Amino acid sequence: MTRRPGYHPSTHRGLTFHDARAAFLAGSDTPRDYLERCLAVIAEREPQVKAWVTLNEAGARAAADAATARYRDGKPLSPVDGMPVGIKDLIETRDMPTQMGSPMYAGYSSGRDSASVYALRSGGAVILGKTVTTELGFSHPGPTTNPFDPERTPGGSSSGSAAAVGAAMVPVALGSQVVGSVIRPAAFCANVAIKPTLGALNRGERVLLSQSHLGVHGSSLEDIWDVSWHVARVAGGDPGYPGLHGLPELAPPTRPARLALVETEGWSHVDADTRHAFERVLDGLRRAGVAIVTRAEHPAVEAFERAIGDSLALCRDVCGYELRWQLWNWRDKGPGLLSDSMMQRLSMADDMRPEDYRARLDEREEMRRRHAALAPVVDALVTLSCAGPAPLMVQSSRHLDSGISHTTGLPAFNAATSALGSPAITLPMLAVGAMPVGVQLIGQQHADWRLAGIARWLSSTVEPVAV
Amino acid sequence: MTRRPGYHPSTHRGLTFHDARAAFLAGSDTPRDYLERCLAVIAEREPQVKAWVTLNEAGARAAADAATARYRDGKPLSPVDGMPVGIKDLIETRDMPTQMGSPMYAGYSSGRDSASVYALRSGGAVILGKTVTTELGFSHPGPTTNPFDPERTPGGSSSGSAAAVGAAMVPVALGSQVVGSVIRPAAFCANVAIKPTLGALNRGERVLLSQSHLGVHGSSLEDIWDVSWHVARVAGGDPGYPGLHGLPELAPPTRPARLALVETEGWSHVDADTRHAFERVLDGLRRAGVAIVTRAEHPAVEAFERAIGDSLALCRDVCGYELRWQLWNWRDKGPGLLSDSMMQRLSMADDMRPEDYRARLDEREEMRRRHAALAPVVDALVTLSCAGPAPLMVQSSRHLDSGISHTTGLPAFNAATSALGSPAITLPMLAVGAMPVGVQLIGQQHADWRLAGIARWLSSTVEPVAV
Repeated sequence: MTRRPGYHPSTHRGLTFHDARAAFLAGSDTPRDYLERCLAVIAEREPQVKAWVTLNEAGARAAADAATARYRDGKPLSPVDGMPVGIKDLIETRDMPTQMGSPMYAGYSSGRDSASVYALRSGGAVILGKTVTTELGFSHPGPTTNPFDPERTPGGSSSGSAAAVGAAMVPVALGSQVVGSVIRPAAFCANVAIKPTLGALNRGERVLLSQSHLGVHGSSLEDIWDVSWHVARVAGGDPGYPGLHGLPELAPPTRPARLALVETEGWSHVDADTRHAFERVLDGLRRAGVAIVTRAEHPAVEAFERAIGDSLALCRDVCGYELRWQLWNWRDKGPGLLSDSMMQRLSMADDMRPEDYRARLDEREEMRRRHAALAPVVDALVTLSCAGPAPLMVQSSRHLDSGISHTTGLPAFNAATSALGSPAITLPMLAVGAMPVGVQLIGQQHADWRLAGIARWLSSTVEPVAV
Repeated sequence: MTRRPGYHPSTHRGLTFHDARAAFLAGSDTPRDYLERCLAVIAEREPQVKAWVTLNEAGARAAADAATARYRDGKPLSPVDGMPVGIKDLIETRDMPTQMGSPMYAGYSSGRDSASVYALRSGGAVILGKTVTTELGFSHPGPTTNPFDPERTPGGSSSGSAAAVGAAMVPVALGSQVVGSVIRPAAFCANVAIKPTLGALNRGERVLLSQSHLGVHGSSLEDIWDVSWHVARVAGGDPGYPGLHGLPELAPPTRPARLALVETEGWSHVDADTRHAFERVLDGLRRAGVAIVTRAEHPAVEAFERAIGDSLALCRDVCGYELRWQLWNWRDKGPGLLSDSMMQRLSMADDMRPEDYRARLDEREEMRRRHAALAPVVDALVTLSCAGPAPLMVQSSRHLDSGISHTTGLPAFNAATSALGSPAITLPMLAVGAMPVGVQLIGQQHADWRLAGIARWLSSTVEPVAV
């Protein structure tokens, strides 16, 4: 095992799928060949990256062959036909176990496809395998390493999905975010990724927390939009939610007139190099004619920053309380089955009364009101996706205010958007010390499509920065 | 097996628990003896009523003995300590399978307690067994018969819970309602029951439909309030919902000044005897000084009735669309595992597009707005809980507008409140042809406690009616 060469955002090429479809139709490439190339990368990189819990190579080859035949006949089922996809191992799959990063679910299989997996499979996608998650989707890490430095975390909880895409093993992988579990690992692993509006993509069985989101990791906006759109079209959104809004095709590049620079709780944790690199992106935006509105310049931005200033602790309380009945059951299964960090979550949640939870819900509503109040002020928000490059795994980052250890990096730039339920997209625009760092765009609820258009414009207009 | 003597609401005595606690503390009765009396009734009635899928007599006796010791020491854990409870077999229990009325779940066990079961067990309740549900909680019936006439349905989908309480096998049983699955069977089986505000009681794993509710069957308002309060206090409400509001003790009897008589879709299905009996209850209300406001008398009531006039079809579409990914998985398991009525649901839901679902959500929101507009007009709504006595099981009731067969009786008086998410309480105030029929009170969202006070006043003030 050797360290990979350093990352540079201008030269890094992830694996994309949308641009392969023309060759499939022309017969110069096939989904089966595409899959074999993915498997070759996995064979090379997996011993070090450890992104996968389960691989279903035989099933994937059969699905790829079927897709190959459909393209040959000029009749692909959908834009995701033949697309190799990794599925975070919290999400159920009928042909593979769903082990959730916990010994309590070792070998567990529900025998069904989650809503999103059903939708992808029915559109011809190649469900290649299950990717590593942290324990039950929270803080305790799995074995995955960062594809750009094996001594660093890939982030979590969608560790394997982010790393598999970052290592170009697959073009796309499903993840999920409750606090910072899509955008943060995606940023650490040079993914493009979307955490859509709350409820926009059907979470299937994963609806037991009020702010969990199904998200998509990829290497191009086209791919993550195609996957999002297809899942929403076939499986809908969550129960009671209108589902993803927009149009089937990725939005055209859209220059925003004004973006709010939001600091979030993450700002004070950013290292000087990362801040410097991000400021250069902001300079690039200004040069392209975008007004950057800061908290010092507009009272609505300041009010919003104040409203979201306690998001990590809010997410800890909201999720801990909602998770409590499951934690009680897990704890009762016997000692040693939950990590220390999960037991820590339980001990904090155990003290909460219904009125404490209600107070947090009220705070969350206030955050959402303050965010909605920015709609007439700016086209979207811009910030970092993470506080800097992925930390070394020997370090344990502890955020004192939240009281929870974050061994997969601090989700301080992500907790607010998870609580807001607003769409967020990360773009791999920065390299800091030859490691990827993401820039995050945040939109109003249901403005996912428009936000993707702004992201498309940004990534095609403003130069990436390496420091 | 012989038919039971006819039902009369003035002489029928269900099994209550709250009034037994003083004797437990005094030592003149014990939870173990209470349980043994329950088991004796079960031994006598179960061969005909068929309310139970699984009984855990040994576990129940151990729990009752522990409760007995706590009362002996003067230290009961909660108002539900020692209370024998039946659990609808859709709801997970760690010590019994959860078979959901479907061959696909024969022998299935999750190994955990649902949030409500965990809460009850931790308060000392005696989790006695699992009660029959219709197939997966929808229309296809189980084996349960009506405790007042074995040729009639107990209603569904909480068939066993309603029948077990109606037969005085247990004081309380948990049910759930998505369309009419608590209030209707409770009314057919002479229960007092509450379907609380949407989200007020933690549904645990049963949150995969946007309008499902955990409900409580019993024979007294005190018992169903004690259970509701305890579940909400320990397990909270659903993720993202504030949970049950009110006070720990059942509200005092509260005379309403004005009640809206609402017809719902059910009105045209009511037989002459049931209508006559219900009118006598309305006369009793008027004599007690309550103004009854009809749709002819107030435009807001008329607007509300119009808004809820398509509730059965709305519930069919909303639930069918939300259930679709599960139905696809179930269908794929092979032929013959889903009933004809479930396959019918799937074929209807299969044609729905996201925009059709959104249109239904919009209609549901409009219903909720029209209901909220009644808050300043009346204290609550009053109507029947069902269209008449439980139908004979050889009949199959089909509601043409909804296109779904209802072999457990038509939920036309219940679909609207399920979609509204508003609290509903049924009281066994009528006998029609010696069979029970319920009167339903409906409140504004979060007014559960106040509604229970109105129900308490009604049941203690207005004479039951037998025709």
